Amino acid sequence: MRIYLAGPDVFLPNASEIAVAKKEICARHGTIGVFPTDPVADSAADAAEERFLEIYLRNEAHIRQSDALIANLTPFRGPSADAGTVYELGFMRALGRPITGYANTARHFADRTRDFLGAAARRRPDGVWVDAEGLCLEDFGRHDNLMIDGGIVAAGGRLITHAVPDHLRWTDLTAFEACVVALMQEMRGAA
Amino acid sequence: MRIYLAGPDVFLPNASEIAVAKKEICARHGTIGVFPTDPVADSAADAAEERFLEIYLRNEAHIRQSDALIANLTPFRGPSADAGTVYELGFMRALGRPITGYANTARHFADRTRDFLGAAARRRPDGVWVDAEGLCLEDFGRHDNLMIDGGIVAAGGRLITHAVPDHLRWTDLTAFEACVVALMQEMRGAA
Repeated sequence: MRIYLAGPDVFLPNASEIAVAKKEICARHGTIGVFPTDPVADSAADAAEERFLEIYLRNEAHIRQSDALIANLTPFRGPSADAGTVYELGFMRALGRPITGYANTARHFADRTRDFLGAAARRRPDGVWVDAEGLCLEDFGRHDNLMIDGGIVAAGGRLITHAVPDHLRWTDLTAFEACVVALMQEMRGAA
Repeated sequence: MRIYLAGPDVFLPNASEIAVAKKEICARHGTIGVFPTDPVADSAADAAEERFLEIYLRNEAHIRQSDALIANLTPFRGPSADAGTVYELGFMRALGRPITGYANTARHFADRTRDFLGAAARRRPDGVWVDAEGLCLEDFGRHDNLMIDGGIVAAGGRLITHAVPDHLRWTDLTAFEACVVALMQEMRGAA
């Protein structure tokens, strides 16, 4: 089985170390981790004239060639997960394959959004929280935007959150490993 | 033809007015706009015990029943587009149907990310911009994360950006209408 390892880990200064560590965890549980920067043959990507499109097409090829996906949904420069990771999560859900995700925080989406907005968040007389532009804050007591939580739940997957000290936000792989375990149990159950 | 209207428009205090305005533009160009909050029959959603999952399943059913998608990619509480919208964009790309998007800003992703980070953004000796945690800033001179731009380009769609005054960020539909026109031309070309 091949598991695509979606996440903003690619932006880390030690991305290759994280890739190795995640792949080792996958191997220990009897599966193969596929990191976005792994080489992959794709004729459209080979022919791409622009670098962003070449990377996109290789990532898409990786996802299409993987059996499942684990998304690093740790909040990235704002209350929500990294946009590229979320795109890939939706993509794999539409392919109908197992998806799961983790985040190295246990705070809920609405709390994180209020933290992010600070004094700009206010409560309307009807009790609904809004931002400075009047747009409502989503509050279902979930980890992130309901399309993220809902997609994982609809796919029968797990969204595992784990509070870690700030300096370990991008390197603690406890919740990642729990995702690998959950996914392998799910795949064995389905087999 | 049915076009799913993805976007954080659902969080606007006047969401229903925007829904009507977008649907009118679609109708004027001979097509049907489907707003996320439109009712839709879905047996799994009907049976959902939790509200977030019910909404998720109805949105997913809408996307599956639509022929194309237009995403409002105007930056939402951070440098990137709304997470739910990005999930839906990836989902529709995986279904292989036409996708297109618009944003009511013409600033590039890297510039918006630097604006967002402020003094926390710094340039490493090798010239790469990083944030306070050392994570790299993506800079391909594109509108958003390359998975967003790349997905639309790979699908043969358009990503239309349009600078508007701040107070019109969520209501100006010029770029949205340009997406409808582009999509209808694309569909006619394919027919």
